[in-house]
Amino acid sequence: MEQQQKKSPGRQSFSFDRGVYVSGMASVAGKLESEGPLGAYFDIIGKDDMFGGKTWEEAESNMQLEAAKHAIGDANLSPDKIRYMAGGDLLGQLIATTFGVEKLSIPLLGLYGACSTMGESLLAGAVLVDGEYTNHALTITSSHFAGAEKQFRFPLAYGNQRPMAATWTVTGSGAVVLSSTKGKYNVRLSGATMGRVIDYGIKDSMNMGACMAPAACDTISCHLDDFHLQPDYYDRIVTGDLGVVGKEILLALLQEKGFDITAQHMDCGIEIFDAARQKTDAGGSGCGCSAITLTGYLLKKISEGVFQRVLFVPTGALLSTVSFNEGNSVPGIAHAVVFEYCGK
Amino acid sequence: MEQQQKKSPGRQSFSFDRGVYVSGMASVAGKLESEGPLGAYFDIIGKDDMFGGKTWEEAESNMQLEAAKHAIGDANLSPDKIRYMAGGDLLGQLIATTFGVEKLSIPLLGLYGACSTMGESLLAGAVLVDGEYTNHALTITSSHFAGAEKQFRFPLAYGNQRPMAATWTVTGSGAVVLSSTKGKYNVRLSGATMGRVIDYGIKDSMNMGACMAPAACDTISCHLDDFHLQPDYYDRIVTGDLGVVGKEILLALLQEKGFDITAQHMDCGIEIFDAARQKTDAGGSGCGCSAITLTGYLLKKISEGVFQRVLFVPTGALLSTVSFNEGNSVPGIAHAVVFEYCGK
Repeated sequence: MEQQQKKSPGRQSFSFDRGVYVSGMASVAGKLESEGPLGAYFDIIGKDDMFGGKTWEEAESNMQLEAAKHAIGDANLSPDKIRYMAGGDLLGQLIATTFGVEKLSIPLLGLYGACSTMGESLLAGAVLVDGEYTNHALTITSSHFAGAEKQFRFPLAYGNQRPMAATWTVTGSGAVVLSSTKGKYNVRLSGATMGRVIDYGIKDSMNMGACMAPAACDTISCHLDDFHLQPDYYDRIVTGDLGVVGKEILLALLQEKGFDITAQHMDCGIEIFDAARQKTDAGGSGCGCSAITLTGYLLKKISEGVFQRVLFVPTGALLSTVSFNEGNSVPGIAHAVVFEYCGK
Repeated sequence: MEQQQKKSPGRQSFSFDRGVYVSGMASVAGKLESEGPLGAYFDIIGKDDMFGGKTWEEAESNMQLEAAKHAIGDANLSPDKIRYMAGGDLLGQLIATTFGVEKLSIPLLGLYGACSTMGESLLAGAVLVDGEYTNHALTITSSHFAGAEKQFRFPLAYGNQRPMAATWTVTGSGAVVLSSTKGKYNVRLSGATMGRVIDYGIKDSMNMGACMAPAACDTISCHLDDFHLQPDYYDRIVTGDLGVVGKEILLALLQEKGFDITAQHMDCGIEIFDAARQKTDAGGSGCGCSAITLTGYLLKKISEGVFQRVLFVPTGALLSTVSFNEGNSVPGIAHAVVFEYCGK
C-alpha cells in the first residue's frame, strides 16, 4: 500500500511546513553588473572582473568563496555551523565551485542545473533543513562572463558577432543561508517544484531564451496546478534569464495552458542590465544572473514587505559544446522556489 | 537556540530512521566489463559499446535510459510513480543524463560528484524518501570509456601510452529505486555521510587513485567517528575506483587515523576487471564502475544475506581539462552510504 507523501503535494512539488528561513545572503557582482539598474543593491563589487585570480575560472572561484563567507557572516554563523552545502556552476565538472569552496571544509552536494542552479540549490538546501537533517544549509552558485564565453561559444579575442537573441552571461555569485529558525530577515522558503527536462527540439545555442521558455512554462504551470493556485497569488513570478525573446514565448505558452502571468512576470535577465545602454542584447544570463538578482534585490524587498509572495523560477539550458556540435537540441530545465514575507 | 538535528548524527552524517529500501536495481555494462570477473552478474550487456547510438555520448545516454527503465520495472513500478530522480554523469554539463532520461519525464535533481556520483545520488534519493517527500526515488549514473577518454585525456586514435597508475573508465550505467516500503529485496539504506572537497595538492591526472584516496580516508574516518563505529562493524567497506595505487594510500592514511580496514576493504575498480588479463592497468574507474559493481554484485549479495552490512564509498576526482591545463591540483570527494541486510 502506498504511504501518504505528506510533504509533497501534487505531481512534483514540495511543501516545507517545518519552517525554512533565509538567515543570511550575499551578492558578489562584476563591473558591468554594478553599472546596471540593480548596481546599488549588490553587497560586494569587484574592482575588475578578476577578483584577485590569475584566470577567469579562478576569478569565479574567488567570487564564490567571497559570497559564501559573506552569507555565512550575514547569518551570524561560522562555517563549522553549516553542516551541508548545495551548489554548483556552469563550468565543466563544476570547477568554479570545487576550487571556490574547498577552503570552507563543508560537506558539498555538487549540483548541475545549468542556469537553474540557484533554484536547484535552494530546493536541495530547503529539503535538508525542512527534513531536520541540519539547522543551517548554504546554497550557492556563480557564473563569469569570460569563463562562460570561452567554454560555450568563441574565444573572446575572436570578436564574433552576437545575434539580437543572444544573452550576456552575468559575472556574479549569489549565496543564501537557509536555517530552521528565523533570523534578521523576514523571509520564509515555504515550497518548491522540481523541474523536468523539457526538449522542444530547438538547436540555436545563441537563443537560449527560446530553449528555456518551455521548461519555465512546464514548471510554473505544474507548480500552480500542484498547489491549486492562480498566478495572482504571487506578487511576482520571476524567471532567471529568459531575456526579451524568451519572455514573450513563456507568456504565450502559459496563455495556451490558461494562465496569464503578464501582470506578475519579471525576468532577472531583463532587470539586471539596461540592455540598450549596456549593449547586452536580449538580457543577462548565467547562474549568477538569477542568483544575484535574488540575493541583491528580491530577498531584500520581500524582507521589507514590498513583495509578500514571490515564485522564483531560474531556468537552465542543458547543452555542452559536445552535444551542440553533434547536432543535438538544447533542452531546458527550471526549478521553482516559493519565498514568503514572514514579518509581523 | 539551536534545535536538535535529530536525523543528523555527528559532523556530516545522516541517519535514515523512517526506512529507506532498495526496491529495484539495474546494471548495464559494456563488452569489456562483461568479460571481467563480475560479467555474469550484470543485467544487460551491450553487444557493442554503442548501445544503438551514433556517438559515444548518445551511447551513454541510451545506457542510462536502459538502466532507468530496467530498475523501475524491477521495482514493479511505472515512471509516473517515481516522483523525483537524482542523477548525473562525468560529461561536461551532464549531457549523458540530460539526453538519457528526458523521455521519462521525471523531475530531475542533476548532480555532479565526478566518480562519487552514485553515492551522491543515493544520498540525495534517500533524503527525499526518508524525509517523506516521495515514496519512490530513482538514483542513477553512468560513464563510457570512449566518451571519458575523449573528454579528459587524448583522442583514442592517438594511442597514447598509459602509465601503470592509470585507470580504465568503465562503460556502464547503474540505477537504484529507493522506496519507503520493503519490496522483493532485503536491503535497507540506513545512513550516509556527505563528503567534503579534500585537496592534497596532487596534480597527476593519470593517477586518480592518489588524488581520491585522501577524500575516501576523510569520509570513511568521519563516518566511523560520527556513528561511533569501528571498521569491523561492516562486512565490507567498498570504495569506488581507487585502483591498486589508491588502495595502498587509503589503507596507510586510515592507519594514521587509527583505523585498520585491511580486512574489510574492497575497491570496485579492482574487482570489476582482471587487470593483468584485460590490460586495464590500475583498475576500473568512472561513475559506472562503482554503480554497476553495486547494482550488479553488492546489492544482490546483501539481499541474499552474504553481507550483512556494507559501507559503500564511491570516490570522485574533481578536475576538468581546463583546471588541469591551468596547473591546478586534482581535489577529491567521496560520499558514503550504508546498506544493511533486512531479511527475516
